Amino acid sequence: MSTLTLDLPDGGYPIHIGTGLLPSGDLLRAPVAGDRVAIITNEIVAPLYLAHLTLALAPYDPAVVILPDGETQKALSTIDHITGALLAARCDRATTLFALGGGVVGDITGFAAAVYQRGVPFVQVPTTLLSQVDSSVGGKTGVNHALGKNMIGCFYQPKAVIIDTATLATLPDRELSAGLAEVIKYGAIGNRAFLEWLERNMEALLRRDPDALAYAIEVSCRDKARVVMADEREAGVRALLNFGHTFGHAIEGGMGYGCWLHGEAVAAGMVMAAQLSQRLGWLAAADAERLRVLIARAGLPTRAPALAPQRYRELMAVDKKAAHGRIRFVLLRALGEAFLTDDVPEDALMAILDPGG
Amino acid sequence: MSTLTLDLPDGGYPIHIGTGLLPSGDLLRAPVAGDRVAIITNEIVAPLYLAHLTLALAPYDPAVVILPDGETQKALSTIDHITGALLAARCDRATTLFALGGGVVGDITGFAAAVYQRGVPFVQVPTTLLSQVDSSVGGKTGVNHALGKNMIGCFYQPKAVIIDTATLATLPDRELSAGLAEVIKYGAIGNRAFLEWLERNMEALLRRDPDALAYAIEVSCRDKARVVMADEREAGVRALLNFGHTFGHAIEGGMGYGCWLHGEAVAAGMVMAAQLSQRLGWLAAADAERLRVLIARAGLPTRAPALAPQRYRELMAVDKKAAHGRIRFVLLRALGEAFLTDDVPEDALMAILDPGG
Repeated sequence: MSTLTLDLPDGGYPIHIGTGLLPSGDLLRAPVAGDRVAIITNEIVAPLYLAHLTLALAPYDPAVVILPDGETQKALSTIDHITGALLAARCDRATTLFALGGGVVGDITGFAAAVYQRGVPFVQVPTTLLSQVDSSVGGKTGVNHALGKNMIGCFYQPKAVIIDTATLATLPDRELSAGLAEVIKYGAIGNRAFLEWLERNMEALLRRDPDALAYAIEVSCRDKARVVMADEREAGVRALLNFGHTFGHAIEGGMGYGCWLHGEAVAAGMVMAAQLSQRLGWLAAADAERLRVLIARAGLPTRAPALAPQRYRELMAVDKKAAHGRIRFVLLRALGEAFLTDDVPEDALMAILDPGG
Repeated sequence: MSTLTLDLPDGGYPIHIGTGLLPSGDLLRAPVAGDRVAIITNEIVAPLYLAHLTLALAPYDPAVVILPDGETQKALSTIDHITGALLAARCDRATTLFALGGGVVGDITGFAAAVYQRGVPFVQVPTTLLSQVDSSVGGKTGVNHALGKNMIGCFYQPKAVIIDTATLATLPDRELSAGLAEVIKYGAIGNRAFLEWLERNMEALLRRDPDALAYAIEVSCRDKARVVMADEREAGVRALLNFGHTFGHAIEGGMGYGCWLHGEAVAAGMVMAAQLSQRLGWLAAADAERLRVLIARAGLPTRAPALAPQRYRELMAVDKKAAHGRIRFVLLRALGEAFLTDDVPEDALMAILDPGG
């Protein structure tokens, strides 16, 4: 097992990465401060791993909330539902919430913890590759609004992140690939050596080689932790983590949440962002193509769905990263070097949004 | 005009108290950091004071959300509604929200600001006595759940509180009295000299003498700011501000939110808390009666509605102040001296909940 620490002014927290962490239980009990816990999970994950948590946390009389699966659960109505379940189980302000599942469960549980009785502690136990390398680390929590993804939420940090890589054994192939999109992102935006490692090890990752997965998760978490420590509230450098996400969120919203997986939308979005970087003269054509090939090798889509360009524009304009009505883009200066800009000529953008137009 | 400052580790904010502050406009523009504002108000307050704000804030292209009146608006569905309105008006993360209205509008707007795109700044412009002396100061924001009051929320501080005492001219008598409940509370829990001033000046307050009101608001805000500065997150002394509220929240919940005004429920709750203090030997009978008389003189109820005692117990057990299943009470050792305890014998409590039993 390896443990990274994410240090922040209000207190840091450990990120434990290893195999078989859930059955042992010690790491699950360590972050519990009060005398009560509640576990939030979903109908897919509960049959697989809930028993580990209820056993390990039995001394804390765990309340359990099992949600339906899917991105559509990321709504205020789910926060209302969880709050009602916690109140019915007499969970007070000394209760620690556990998020057991993927990014959706983690985002919902973190937000529920942030607002339940004005804030209770929570622990992330991510069980998908995407949540292990991205959403469980860094304290972004929230739900969607019908008019925009992640529009309602808080920055609220967990007390610990417990990543048991053994949970990836049960992950569907499509979800594994979706997680690899965010892994590739870390290489593309700031870690060229890691990108090259991914080029050499993509097949090992796809056949779920434990050592390869553990290494990829550790590098991803370390890169993410470094960025979050430098800029918790996304006033600057943290925005680079949104590479591919401005286009990606538009794809997700335009197709209806849950149709494309988040990682799939980000994958196609990264290809679009690289193409835009190339068109504006920042990125060599060979490098844009090299990134596209790696994304394709991960089993991910490299072409966005054919929405009307104007629809893409509308969807991107409500993105949280838009400032003063201008869309901010994360572009690449080179593989491993991203930058922020809101200075993108309209015709260049339209050429990306409407490649056949 | 007088200005108090509430200093906190993450930055303080001014509390301006004076007459005619809204028409002048300067104080409204001062806390705006970005280039856009949105005003959240309700159907009662909008016809009276919204024009002052839209005029003063015209350079910031104000979006306006007008809610129906009433405590039932304090629900997650209203947060969803406000979020949708802000997104439709293209309000980005640089938007400052203004809460124009009473405690309900302030609590909702503060929470909406805390969670809109993971947090935007907001300004409190309270127009009721209750919100001016209590809820607009200190950063408690949130909404109700069907199973409990204020169960979903955040600690989230405003950038400024602007109290125009001229707005009290249009306040219904019943609301004025409800605000006086919280004013009396400050005297009862920690400021005996102020309690005695209230005994001498209750008639002046009820006839809305401007100087008397300004003084009462200023002392109340100063006392509240002092407590919040000492204990922002209610780990200790801030809980004393809940004097009368454990009983009061049970009354509100038991009767259905909005039936009793919050201040009315707190008034009857303070009488119950004083009676309990007396029964347990802490408070002299004459002092409990003296507090009851002052509350009655303010035009407030001094007897709780006749709910079944067991119903009161259930409602109090879900109160946020309950810890580890035990109800925590704020009791009086003397007029002007409150303390916290969870050591209240069952028979003493039942005698208060069921005086005829």
